Amino acid sequence: MTDTSHTLLLAAHGTRLEPSNEEVRQLTALLREKVGERFARVECAFLELTKPSLSDVIDQVIAEGSTNVTVLPYFLVAGRHVAKDIPDIVNEKRTQYPGVRIQVTDYFGSDNQVPHLLAALAIAAGR
Amino acid sequence: MTDTSHTLLLAAHGTRLEPSNEEVRQLTALLREKVGERFARVECAFLELTKPSLSDVIDQVIAEGSTNVTVLPYFLVAGRHVAKDIPDIVNEKRTQYPGVRIQVTDYFGSDNQVPHLLAALAIAAGR
Repeated sequence: MTDTSHTLLLAAHGTRLEPSNEEVRQLTALLREKVGERFARVECAFLELTKPSLSDVIDQVIAEGSTNVTVLPYFLVAGRHVAKDIPDIVNEKRTQYPGVRIQVTDYFGSDNQVPHLLAALAIAAGR
Repeated sequence: MTDTSHTLLLAAHGTRLEPSNEEVRQLTALLREKVGERFARVECAFLELTKPSLSDVIDQVIAEGSTNVTVLPYFLVAGRHVAKDIPDIVNEKRTQYPGVRIQVTDYFGSDNQVPHLLAALAIAAGR
């Protein structure tokens, strides 16, 4: 059942290469189709070099009615953005919006399906 | 059946943060377990900031007997490393080693299972 106040934010690195940012936007659109039953709204946000920033998108979706925000870090390894920047932004926003639930999922690369996917990709290609 | 001359190389970005590089090495070890039936050898290599470089690892595995090398770019989007640097290195090595088959798979983020995985991660977390 859709929680009409629940937003999913895909938090990506961002790059000067616009086609790479566009890949993230297209992935966000795909994700929107897939999780529409669970999340009323799905947006992307960027940590560096690309707008909109994670901080701005959190502000915006809350201003537009979200009271429940789930941030999904779209990163392969737990570098500075995953370990420090995203938690820092989320903690700041929790203080700023005490009535809003803001949570962060595990980062994408930590998913235990990643090695399976890589193995399948390697085996399919390595013929 | 294992091709005893076939090596899989996971080509990752590399970072100054050693724990993040270690994540790539651990993933490589997991991958080694999963694709051992297909690849005799599985190694990682880095594009920036971390050793060993992709160029050096290709040299090394060929010196040690590989005549078939598959490079799997462990990147989420097709930035400069995926679009230019990895193909450039691979083309240089093909010229250098005409008797060796060197191929590059699609980059990880382009796999059509990625949106499914992200959706599952979001739905599991967003309760």
